[in-house]
Amino acid sequence: MISIYNERLSAVRHQLAQWEADSLLIGSPANRRWLSGFTGSTGWLLITFDRALLATDSRYWEQAQQQAPEFELFQVTDGMADSWSSLFDTGGVKHLVVEGSHLAVQQYDTIRQKSAVEPLPREHTIEPLRRRKSAAEIDSIRNAAAIADEAMASVPKMIRLGMTELELAWELEKHMRELGAEAVAFPIIVAAGPNSALPHHRPGEGRLASGDAVVIDLGARLNGYHSDLTRTFYLGSEPGERFREVYETVAQAQETALNELHASLTGAEADVLSRDVIVAAGYGEHFGHSLGHGVGLEVHEAPRLSQRAPDEVIGADSVVTVEPGIYLTDWGGVRIEDLVLVTANGVELLSQSPKQPYLPL
Amino acid sequence: MISIYNERLSAVRHQLAQWEADSLLIGSPANRRWLSGFTGSTGWLLITFDRALLATDSRYWEQAQQQAPEFELFQVTDGMADSWSSLFDTGGVKHLVVEGSHLAVQQYDTIRQKSAVEPLPREHTIEPLRRRKSAAEIDSIRNAAAIADEAMASVPKMIRLGMTELELAWELEKHMRELGAEAVAFPIIVAAGPNSALPHHRPGEGRLASGDAVVIDLGARLNGYHSDLTRTFYLGSEPGERFREVYETVAQAQETALNELHASLTGAEADVLSRDVIVAAGYGEHFGHSLGHGVGLEVHEAPRLSQRAPDEVIGADSVVTVEPGIYLTDWGGVRIEDLVLVTANGVELLSQSPKQPYLPL
Repeated sequence: MISIYNERLSAVRHQLAQWEADSLLIGSPANRRWLSGFTGSTGWLLITFDRALLATDSRYWEQAQQQAPEFELFQVTDGMADSWSSLFDTGGVKHLVVEGSHLAVQQYDTIRQKSAVEPLPREHTIEPLRRRKSAAEIDSIRNAAAIADEAMASVPKMIRLGMTELELAWELEKHMRELGAEAVAFPIIVAAGPNSALPHHRPGEGRLASGDAVVIDLGARLNGYHSDLTRTFYLGSEPGERFREVYETVAQAQETALNELHASLTGAEADVLSRDVIVAAGYGEHFGHSLGHGVGLEVHEAPRLSQRAPDEVIGADSVVTVEPGIYLTDWGGVRIEDLVLVTANGVELLSQSPKQPYLPL
Repeated sequence: MISIYNERLSAVRHQLAQWEADSLLIGSPANRRWLSGFTGSTGWLLITFDRALLATDSRYWEQAQQQAPEFELFQVTDGMADSWSSLFDTGGVKHLVVEGSHLAVQQYDTIRQKSAVEPLPREHTIEPLRRRKSAAEIDSIRNAAAIADEAMASVPKMIRLGMTELELAWELEKHMRELGAEAVAFPIIVAAGPNSALPHHRPGEGRLASGDAVVIDLGARLNGYHSDLTRTFYLGSEPGERFREVYETVAQAQETALNELHASLTGAEADVLSRDVIVAAGYGEHFGHSLGHGVGLEVHEAPRLSQRAPDEVIGADSVVTVEPGIYLTDWGGVRIEDLVLVTANGVELLSQSPKQPYLPL
């Protein structure tokens, strides 16, 4: 049986040949973990056609050997600056690709000064390979999504008028951790009343009141993989006309995208599925972010479902959020977000939370 | 009254003159927060002799104006790549310093391609200014240290034979959060038995047993500032000779450093205070990390108390950890860590936890 890491190394070597390079240096945490399994905070992967090296310091030698058996350990003892030359000699490096979006200018200069290699930065290296999720990756994300669903399902029991946004966020975080999440995927958003008009509101001491719209955006991390889920609730039994209209518009925009999304659309074509509905309802200028983003070892990764990705085809087996929203300053906002697996014909929902906004408290 | 942020801007401008530059671009989160107060995840500061601009996208315009009143908001609408030129024109930028240790090669290239400015990377920009803590910063760290102390004080009540490392870590995390921590400063380390020989062990399903040494390393975050505290416990009433000897050596090494540390030492001179004691006891090769590190908006920041910092004077009003350790593979380890404010004459302890390792369970 070929390990998933050997498959990934083969894919990287195939890519190297296309780049007309002989080696790739990886230092960013998500790329490093995806390619090797190593989760330590410091380490560099050097992949050549016939070797796969993991360079790290003594704190991580034992962990590196356990987590990354497909890689040869290269022991760093005097700091990376003084190790580049010997690492590259070990790998027989001549044409080295480096991660342009991650490698700092200072590190790039150090490599040039301390070795005979002229590194070739590329904006994306293995990120495009990470778009297509394996069965095991989809399992981890599905399980992380189930934890988020369970937390969201506890909201009606957990929520009380007068509790603060922070208190509710903490109750939800505890619940996800006790359900087995390694961590929250990101700081939980609980945004009540006018705060719900801010897509990135950080929960504060504001107290939940009858008549508030409350946007709750949360996710879990499991085996390094993330989930991401948003629901909007209305606290009370008599929402005004405005809330009903905004909520129904967002719900319809989301449903349209879920129904029509598939792997051969571009990011911009996906984005417009929801945007058209919101624009038609007269709220176009109040949907200020893009429709969604890829999710995996990072909470935000490729592909983007965005007007800024007109040429980027989404591709099968990617996992993305579908999260239209409408935000009205001083009034509030509504966002509904699901996590889906994109297939050739459509999507499979990974999040299963009901979309029932009314909480008569 | 001059705000702390105006004082910091003055210090940066003084620095600019020394660099013979007219502007500084800051994009790294800790530097950005220290200089402006802005805590959003995306944004660039441009500081010139007469302006201070904060460039960010619509998600953060409201937050930026609230958190960073000393900065003029520069509204980014079409992505940063297409905004560099107009941002630099607004600031009248000619000689621009950029953060060499943070700016990615790709961003550097984009700035060069999309503007008429030739950026000048420096390895350190405002990190040296961040070493000296203000009274308000020290207060935040002191309060974060008090939360860590309270959590550590709860260990004897909380710990039970048979509980897993992960369970204890989670109990400690909950306790810190309920005491007011915004977050843990870093994933809590609970390392029991042979795991305690790994300085960076991640807690797992291993169960605490009588006769284990248990290293607990934790910290809280408050107002963005961190604390960092380690204690080692022995579970039982009859530690063997080896544990007593190792513990006493580390305790003496730490006490020596606490007694002799002061602001005019270099990082290497500080490191050797503890190292000499450990070497004299015959454990020199088992103290594989440095004595300590600065703590502030980042858990690891300048100054380093390290053999690798022979020329770096620590300086007054820096906050550092003092954390010698001895790690014996397959047996276990001992680390004792306090957080201190360094003064001209010595140190002031910010952590107050007792050093009583024996827990007869």
